Amino acid sequence: MTNITRLAGMMAEIGADWAVLTGADSVCFATGHVVPIEIGQSPFSGGPTVAVVGRDGSAGLVCPNTDGGQGGPYEEIAYTGFANAVTDQVANYRAAVSDMVKRMGVSGAIAIEQSSFPYAIADLLSEKRIPMDVPLARLRAVKNDAEVGLMTFAAKVAAAGQDEARHLSVPGACEMDVFGRIRSKMEVMSNSRCAFAGEYITGVERTSQLGLPINDRSIELGDPVVCDLAPRVAGYWGDSCSSFIVGGNAPDKYLHMYNAAKSTLELAISELRPGLKVCDFDAQLRAHMKGLGYDYPHHSGHGIGTSVHEFPRLVPDETALFEENMFIMIEPGSYVPGLGGLRCEYMLRVTATGAEVSAPFEMSCQ
Amino acid sequence: MTNITRLAGMMAEIGADWAVLTGADSVCFATGHVVPIEIGQSPFSGGPTVAVVGRDGSAGLVCPNTDGGQGGPYEEIAYTGFANAVTDQVANYRAAVSDMVKRMGVSGAIAIEQSSFPYAIADLLSEKRIPMDVPLARLRAVKNDAEVGLMTFAAKVAAAGQDEARHLSVPGACEMDVFGRIRSKMEVMSNSRCAFAGEYITGVERTSQLGLPINDRSIELGDPVVCDLAPRVAGYWGDSCSSFIVGGNAPDKYLHMYNAAKSTLELAISELRPGLKVCDFDAQLRAHMKGLGYDYPHHSGHGIGTSVHEFPRLVPDETALFEENMFIMIEPGSYVPGLGGLRCEYMLRVTATGAEVSAPFEMSCQ
Repeated sequence: MTNITRLAGMMAEIGADWAVLTGADSVCFATGHVVPIEIGQSPFSGGPTVAVVGRDGSAGLVCPNTDGGQGGPYEEIAYTGFANAVTDQVANYRAAVSDMVKRMGVSGAIAIEQSSFPYAIADLLSEKRIPMDVPLARLRAVKNDAEVGLMTFAAKVAAAGQDEARHLSVPGACEMDVFGRIRSKMEVMSNSRCAFAGEYITGVERTSQLGLPINDRSIELGDPVVCDLAPRVAGYWGDSCSSFIVGGNAPDKYLHMYNAAKSTLELAISELRPGLKVCDFDAQLRAHMKGLGYDYPHHSGHGIGTSVHEFPRLVPDETALFEENMFIMIEPGSYVPGLGGLRCEYMLRVTATGAEVSAPFEMSCQ
Repeated sequence: MTNITRLAGMMAEIGADWAVLTGADSVCFATGHVVPIEIGQSPFSGGPTVAVVGRDGSAGLVCPNTDGGQGGPYEEIAYTGFANAVTDQVANYRAAVSDMVKRMGVSGAIAIEQSSFPYAIADLLSEKRIPMDVPLARLRAVKNDAEVGLMTFAAKVAAAGQDEARHLSVPGACEMDVFGRIRSKMEVMSNSRCAFAGEYITGVERTSQLGLPINDRSIELGDPVVCDLAPRVAGYWGDSCSSFIVGGNAPDKYLHMYNAAKSTLELAISELRPGLKVCDFDAQLRAHMKGLGYDYPHHSGHGIGTSVHEFPRLVPDETALFEENMFIMIEPGSYVPGLGGLRCEYMLRVTATGAEVSAPFEMSCQ
């Protein structure tokens, strides 16, 4: 079933006549149109790209002329954003949305995304508005067949980056340079430039902390490495994390900690299935890790799709149930001052009866 | 003078009591806070980061907790975006903006940016709104002393990328891989990950077209290369373009075309000065290029700052005047099927009496 059809079904449930999608991730989910995001909002846009979907399965897209023409199951208006002349992008954007609203006959109750719906087009649409953030997040969490293929490929691109990371993490190499080469490997594999989240952090002191930026540190023999790679490929995100010791020969204490995280990941692979409650699964993973003497101060994982973090997040109070064809990142880790940090992360697809790893890569610390 | 003080002056001119900045570029311009843009809107945000500036020079910032704490001349509220629990980011965002509005006493006439002002906070602010897009763009075009330093460094990072491009553009190398290594060089130099615009295109057929994506093409001896590098460093953009022949030995026809673009760039350097009308300058450059037998189907250049393309754009109908401390990209080029393409682009700072190249790099085609 196409996502436009699925959206139409959701709209019927929440009583919306039309949906106006304005998040780059939701636009891609609905239409397949990939909004360029790598430099933030385009300087040639007059506002966020808009996808309009009707309950009858009709769809329209309003985007700047700098990224129109991708083609898809929608009517497109590509307004003048870039021109060899002075132009008013906001006016062009508003005119294009207004045109689309008239062409498609958009009226009645309008479902909107609260975090991205722009003020600039509010007066062009009916004032009867229904927030769709929660039902849309739930709909997006379950992937259709085409999306399963896209997610699997994005996971494979991340896995290829992980292989490259092991080759390039050698004494004397520079953290930032290795990271760049890993990213380059993934972009060559996908034959496209990728938006990119993640981190590549080395050394005992740095890996035992969370959230540090990549820098120019020189890698040393025996360094722990935390390599978290998340590329966006054709609008869909891969994600992954491996941890290892440069040159192998992990100290016993690090190996023990590593095995705790790895066995927690293995537990997740064996236990994840449709119908399981997210908070129960999260508690099971945390308890397993705790039983081995470690814990992690973050989520156990998260959904992923056209956004790198999406519903459901694997946190202690999430009561949603897992469903078939959700893609779930599982990422137990441990971060101990003086010893270093690590995280073991695979992408899992929830199958009809269990779960499978979307794109395995080497998961050992030496 | 700080940009907050300059903004306060602008507000007095347009009759605004407060300015609510919501573009990532404008937030950085006003406060120095660098909004992460590399993966588009953060999945942990409830809406665009907001900077509030008062006519008295007071300033406030509302951002998700994932990028708070950068420090600057403003009061900050970092709302819960990322948490190890289920959380409603939109509600948190709205609450934080509402709190900031009360703390600062925001009322009266509110200046807004039309292309980014979010519907989600419209009801939290006075309904008397003044679009500030045009005056803000004009204000941002002229840099203060701190910005001159930031722009110059960003230009130097781009120039270092250009040097690297000449080293790496050898027969057998892969376009995407070379691009990745160039980017890596710039990120190592800036010791930070950079958002990145630009292109690295090779071969006669590909360089004679505009707007192609980088791909896995294998570079050949004698290929023309168009290397356009634009990194964002600490919130400010560098930009640059060089063109050259792999292995040197440019064909006479290419060399002739190259010299036309280069002499147009040299003319721009000698002619650019405060008080000159943009359209007159644009016409002068186009006429010079035309006189040598070539033309380009795009702008002659553009302003640059916290956005990679900003006011003024060098197009035939822009009647604004150049002012001291504008940073202007100048980029004459030519694209001829069967011969290839090229573009020669430097960043210029408008000085009190003329213009200077911010960060020169080798500008020859062989």
